[in-house]
Amino acid sequence: MPTAPSTAPDTPYLTVDLDILERNLQRGAEDARERGLVLRPHAKTHKVPELGRLQLEHGAVGLTLATVSEAEIFADAGFDDIFIAYPVWPSESRAARMRGLAERIALRVGVDSVESAQALGAALQGAPVEVLVEVDSGHHRSGVQPADAGAVAVAAARAGLHVVGVFTFPGHSYTPGGGERAARDEASAISEAAEALISHRIDPTVRSGGSTPSRAGSDSTVLTELRPGVYVFNDAQQVELGTCSFDEVSLTVQATVVSRVGHDVIVDAGSKALGADRAAWATGFGRLPELPDARILALSEHHATVRLPEVETVPELGTMMRIVPNHVCSTVNLADEFFVVRGGAIVDTWEVAARGANS
Amino acid sequence: MPTAPSTAPDTPYLTVDLDILERNLQRGAEDARERGLVLRPHAKTHKVPELGRLQLEHGAVGLTLATVSEAEIFADAGFDDIFIAYPVWPSESRAARMRGLAERIALRVGVDSVESAQALGAALQGAPVEVLVEVDSGHHRSGVQPADAGAVAVAAARAGLHVVGVFTFPGHSYTPGGGERAARDEASAISEAAEALISHRIDPTVRSGGSTPSRAGSDSTVLTELRPGVYVFNDAQQVELGTCSFDEVSLTVQATVVSRVGHDVIVDAGSKALGADRAAWATGFGRLPELPDARILALSEHHATVRLPEVETVPELGTMMRIVPNHVCSTVNLADEFFVVRGGAIVDTWEVAARGANS
Repeated sequence: MPTAPSTAPDTPYLTVDLDILERNLQRGAEDARERGLVLRPHAKTHKVPELGRLQLEHGAVGLTLATVSEAEIFADAGFDDIFIAYPVWPSESRAARMRGLAERIALRVGVDSVESAQALGAALQGAPVEVLVEVDSGHHRSGVQPADAGAVAVAAARAGLHVVGVFTFPGHSYTPGGGERAARDEASAISEAAEALISHRIDPTVRSGGSTPSRAGSDSTVLTELRPGVYVFNDAQQVELGTCSFDEVSLTVQATVVSRVGHDVIVDAGSKALGADRAAWATGFGRLPELPDARILALSEHHATVRLPEVETVPELGTMMRIVPNHVCSTVNLADEFFVVRGGAIVDTWEVAARGANS
Repeated sequence: MPTAPSTAPDTPYLTVDLDILERNLQRGAEDARERGLVLRPHAKTHKVPELGRLQLEHGAVGLTLATVSEAEIFADAGFDDIFIAYPVWPSESRAARMRGLAERIALRVGVDSVESAQALGAALQGAPVEVLVEVDSGHHRSGVQPADAGAVAVAAARAGLHVVGVFTFPGHSYTPGGGERAARDEASAISEAAEALISHRIDPTVRSGGSTPSRAGSDSTVLTELRPGVYVFNDAQQVELGTCSFDEVSLTVQATVVSRVGHDVIVDAGSKALGADRAAWATGFGRLPELPDARILALSEHHATVRLPEVETVPELGTMMRIVPNHVCSTVNLADEFFVVRGGAIVDTWEVAARGANS
């Protein structure tokens, strides 16, 4: 465990406000509990075992992760119930790693085709891995069409896998006004896929969905489980989608003004600190909670160009500024650690233990 | 030093083809030498001391870096001549770190305002740090207007700094057809700034410029030094700008097909492996050298959606595919190591020693 530094490091660096984080954890847990849904948050957002433990303390039943290597790191840290929400391809070495994981934790993985179900069944050699069929609910990434979920489930069962249900990521919620529609699509797709499993006499016990922008609309008469990730930190995308306010953003990047031209300032947090994510509908490359009308017009690796409103006084060189990154999952994956703050003081540092764990 | 693995790891991972890398190193060195320019390559692109040593072996006089922490890591690895091409803000702790560096290596840094020159002079307390005035040649990021370079140089000299010249980054070369114009702007801005220094009796011994897309046009009657970075690896941006061919791309990301829908395949290298950079003029989120007409239409953290031309056979699940990332500096900064390949076999691994060194 790293120890808390007595002073802040040089910019740029990440801080997490513990009070806001705890409110976000609590709200996420209450939202799920009130609607009778199980919470299995996606820990790819934070990659930090300490934070995963806080999620379990707030009632999460287990964690969701994106890769086998993330799952290995969390298993090493003591987590014993993990869903890899990805159509994991069982290459020889990756299959061996999955069998190793299945010996020590309760492991679930996704499949999204007859071929991958057959390959996975053969590669896992009877290891006790539960399988969920991934369904495309409108994001059009991985996932089968709902009507085809039955065929995939049957192939998986015939290949010796234990099929426990279906899941989807309604990622088309990431567009202005898209949350409600994505939630309706999620309910429709999961419902149809669950029926398809039932028609093949496979019980869809787990019906898993959820994303931070759509979770308010997730249909608890259809789903059993939610997997939001970003809700613990929030970010500029969530602010601009209307999912949260700046007061609900717990993670920010601390930066320093290094240059000034007119009403533009350059700060030292560029794409290597903030991440380069920018959706078509985003107003810039991040936001400044203290200057809500400022916009980050341009981003280089170590420069962010912030345009201030004409009415603002241009800050002096050396001034510290807080930036809310566009997509916090990418931001965290650039950092080796972040600084945990309570009441403005650094009280702890958390290592981003699963940073870069893509395989 | 990491030892070479006998087999490849699970995807996604980065490989560097040593033959292509050496040709790129040689060409970059020859380009500069033939035109009488000193080569001081930007090592923020690769962050690898082994590769920096190859650059010195090919005739580079020293390295360029972007941050004090990168410079510390390279100084620890034995590099003794480093230019931090950035208007470094001398906070108390960062100034102390710069003074520490100046005790053990030849250190240059940038300044781009009277205020930062004064602050830097006061903070460095007479440490032997050389200073270059940063000039805006049209990229409109940091840097003073050329005519103002004299005033900044005078302020720096009065603050006790040793001003040795001027530099610019003609980053507006990163647009189709922009390389030649950016090189002309670079020559014009550096020429005017150098005159401004001379008019204040400060000798602009070092006149530094260069970017990979503009370097072919850099004016050797004006400049003394080039600082390209990307040329060692190249990337999809360079291919699409016409700066290089696929055969000159030395770094690629190895990925696996995990899902298929029609003529789209999903591979397991997403934004956390490739980086999310996408210029407005880019045709997608990266390119596939073996399938030059394919396009990466969408990128999630662990998914890239590749649209294949109708004439192509859709590859089987589990097929390995090579991806050229859009912006290799961002890609490298996501990885802890890369695998060095010669003749298709992994012969070494290089740690990305300065990964995440943003401060």
